[in-house]
Amino acid sequence: MSNLQKVAVLGAGTVGSQVIRLIEESQAELEARSGAKLEVNAVVVRNLDSKRDYEIKRELLTTDANAAIDGADIVIELIGGIEPAFTHVKRALSRGATVITGNKALLAKHGAELYELAEANDTDLYFEAAVAGAIPIVYGLRESIAGDRVNRLLGIVNGTTNFILDQMSTTGATYEAALKKAQELGFAEADPTADVEGLDAAAKCAIMASLAFHTRVSIDDVEVEGITGITAEDVAEAAKNGMVVKLLAVAQRRGEEGILAQVYPALVPNTHPLAMVSGAFNAVLLDNESAGRLMFYGQGAGGTPTASAVLSDLVAGASHRVLGGHAPRESRYADLPVLDPSMAQARFQLRLKVAERPGVLAEVSSVFGNNGVSLLTVSQDVAEGDVASLSLSTHTTSGAQMDAVRRELAESEVVLSVESVLRIEGE
Amino acid sequence: MSNLQKVAVLGAGTVGSQVIRLIEESQAELEARSGAKLEVNAVVVRNLDSKRDYEIKRELLTTDANAAIDGADIVIELIGGIEPAFTHVKRALSRGATVITGNKALLAKHGAELYELAEANDTDLYFEAAVAGAIPIVYGLRESIAGDRVNRLLGIVNGTTNFILDQMSTTGATYEAALKKAQELGFAEADPTADVEGLDAAAKCAIMASLAFHTRVSIDDVEVEGITGITAEDVAEAAKNGMVVKLLAVAQRRGEEGILAQVYPALVPNTHPLAMVSGAFNAVLLDNESAGRLMFYGQGAGGTPTASAVLSDLVAGASHRVLGGHAPRESRYADLPVLDPSMAQARFQLRLKVAERPGVLAEVSSVFGNNGVSLLTVSQDVAEGDVASLSLSTHTTSGAQMDAVRRELAESEVVLSVESVLRIEGE
Repeated sequence: MSNLQKVAVLGAGTVGSQVIRLIEESQAELEARSGAKLEVNAVVVRNLDSKRDYEIKRELLTTDANAAIDGADIVIELIGGIEPAFTHVKRALSRGATVITGNKALLAKHGAELYELAEANDTDLYFEAAVAGAIPIVYGLRESIAGDRVNRLLGIVNGTTNFILDQMSTTGATYEAALKKAQELGFAEADPTADVEGLDAAAKCAIMASLAFHTRVSIDDVEVEGITGITAEDVAEAAKNGMVVKLLAVAQRRGEEGILAQVYPALVPNTHPLAMVSGAFNAVLLDNESAGRLMFYGQGAGGTPTASAVLSDLVAGASHRVLGGHAPRESRYADLPVLDPSMAQARFQLRLKVAERPGVLAEVSSVFGNNGVSLLTVSQDVAEGDVASLSLSTHTTSGAQMDAVRRELAESEVVLSVESVLRIEGE
Repeated sequence: MSNLQKVAVLGAGTVGSQVIRLIEESQAELEARSGAKLEVNAVVVRNLDSKRDYEIKRELLTTDANAAIDGADIVIELIGGIEPAFTHVKRALSRGATVITGNKALLAKHGAELYELAEANDTDLYFEAAVAGAIPIVYGLRESIAGDRVNRLLGIVNGTTNFILDQMSTTGATYEAALKKAQELGFAEADPTADVEGLDAAAKCAIMASLAFHTRVSIDDVEVEGITGITAEDVAEAAKNGMVVKLLAVAQRRGEEGILAQVYPALVPNTHPLAMVSGAFNAVLLDNESAGRLMFYGQGAGGTPTASAVLSDLVAGASHRVLGGHAPRESRYADLPVLDPSMAQARFQLRLKVAERPGVLAEVSSVFGNNGVSLLTVSQDVAEGDVASLSLSTHTTSGAQMDAVRRELAESEVVLSVESVLRIEGE
């Protein structure tokens, strides 16, 4: 059997052009590692004349995706978004090609169908690049932790929001100013919605939760709260208390009962391993039954780091085609119910503006008591005129209970405004 | 084909007994994940009546290793040390059994022969548990980073020395007192030589370097310096400069020229990701060509965490036996020369006792200059009588040059003693 493997790359943007460069530059090494001679024989682009980060041989460029797919043993999909990526990936898998994708949106939405198609056609689907750039969390969950039980997964998996929150924390900037800075520096897109509303993190959360809990989890199962409501005051108050604000992807297993998947901004103590994850870096923490805590840390985005993840998949995929074996199949035997995220327990911190008069603290406290939420700390700032600022933290309670507290506080006549409600991560 | 896989466990100590417990307790999960029904049918021990952490069914226990190996599809070797482990593992591989081992000493010494034997018999050798307990660094290097080039690897991979150095750092204890504490708490053995002299870290360094650089590296290739020379003064001086002392395993590639592997105690700035790795935790940092910096962090030892690593290998190994495919073979195509470790470059910090009289600083400085080493900082403490303490740090220089400086300082009549010479990690 020839060990030649023809590779089609769909999309030659930031990641795609680096993938092509690395395949060309490290051909001998990749062959030594995979047993396969890898040859890129088509690069599908929308515009043949676009300027690219790496100059691709003109004869490889094509706009005909179907012909490229049909001529390939291995298809690398780096277009992003649902269509036409979905159609292309289905076509490739149906023809028995190995597919490598970095498309989190596609997987979080249609992962189940793609897995089934790969299995039905006796081929493999790889997606290390879809979650947290260069960090090998897909390998970690699919293989490294396969002999253990993951209880909880906690990640900083979106570089844009991490950059914005960092800016706010280090410079005291408002959310709007920090977003503008991020856009100027190319860390945020012109339309930043997918990042700042937490949707990108939610897609990654769904993919990681599926792998961690051997259960299908789609993006629609993830409760999402973004960072657009985070204010300079939230960040300053956090700093005062030795904490930072981070956008977290959180997935957890409640025994045999089911799983919970959420994305939300939270207060993270400075002593927590995730507190030091700054800028474009990502990290994923796993709390496991036997292994205890594991952390994976690295660059969460960028052309070259993400291309590195694609190339690892390429070595594995090519090796399996030439030497036999398969990528791990979809593991969904546990088939745990996805629970209502409002059941998830957490500690909360609230900032309120209240009327400055006797009896207010008792009234506010009673709202928590009425809803079965116990307070851990209460502190009141010096009043400005007849308005006082209250900062309260709770013992562990459910999101549903906090929602009830929040509603009742909003209706209370002594509460002028609920400035913020944030979860606190860690002990 | 039956999916039953018979497992023999050699050794039922801290890790072995947890492995047996986990296989028994999670049989259904392991079958769902691997496709194989796993049955422990022999546990080889030296003494049938020893008390164990987990009560093993009496009928499984045996002292006959050969019979146990011959009756098994998968052999898990957790005896440790070279013999009889080496003989047992060779027997198992020769019979085509899959071998899973946590034996770093064996691999660092005879890994090449075992790899060849596995390949010749078309079977697999797994060893995630041999390096850094629960941290999946073997998976990381064998698979996750297979599409990239590792330039440098930096690890805290020995929990005993990390505990001792932590104790010294947090309590101001001497090395001897911290070692005694570690022994009392079970973090250090009665004979702590392998840990404190850096030999355990060196074995792990050799294994990781082999995987990272696709080159055979044995423990004899690793330059080793332990922590027995570290004093309370070293630790206090480090703290004064915003640093901590850590025992590091360091392996690096110098382009096509070759590789270097070393274990030494170094000064690590508090802002460095490895500075926060305390107590029984381990971490490995990889600096890669495309992916940039990746870090893996977790528990480096202990029965249950290490058993988790064994079970991941068990799932992979059993799955390959039942569903086809193989573990990655030994990858040594790069076959880079292992260079003389004294070529390795680093910044150094020295503490000297010198005579308190005019011209001393000039004389000391000239020793560095004569050997082509430039000084970065020099500070002198207030003299006690006619003895002054000098603290100096250098620009990047080679170990060989520093050895020359050290020899000349020792002979200088103004230098009363060279108190310590430590490398500084990071920028």
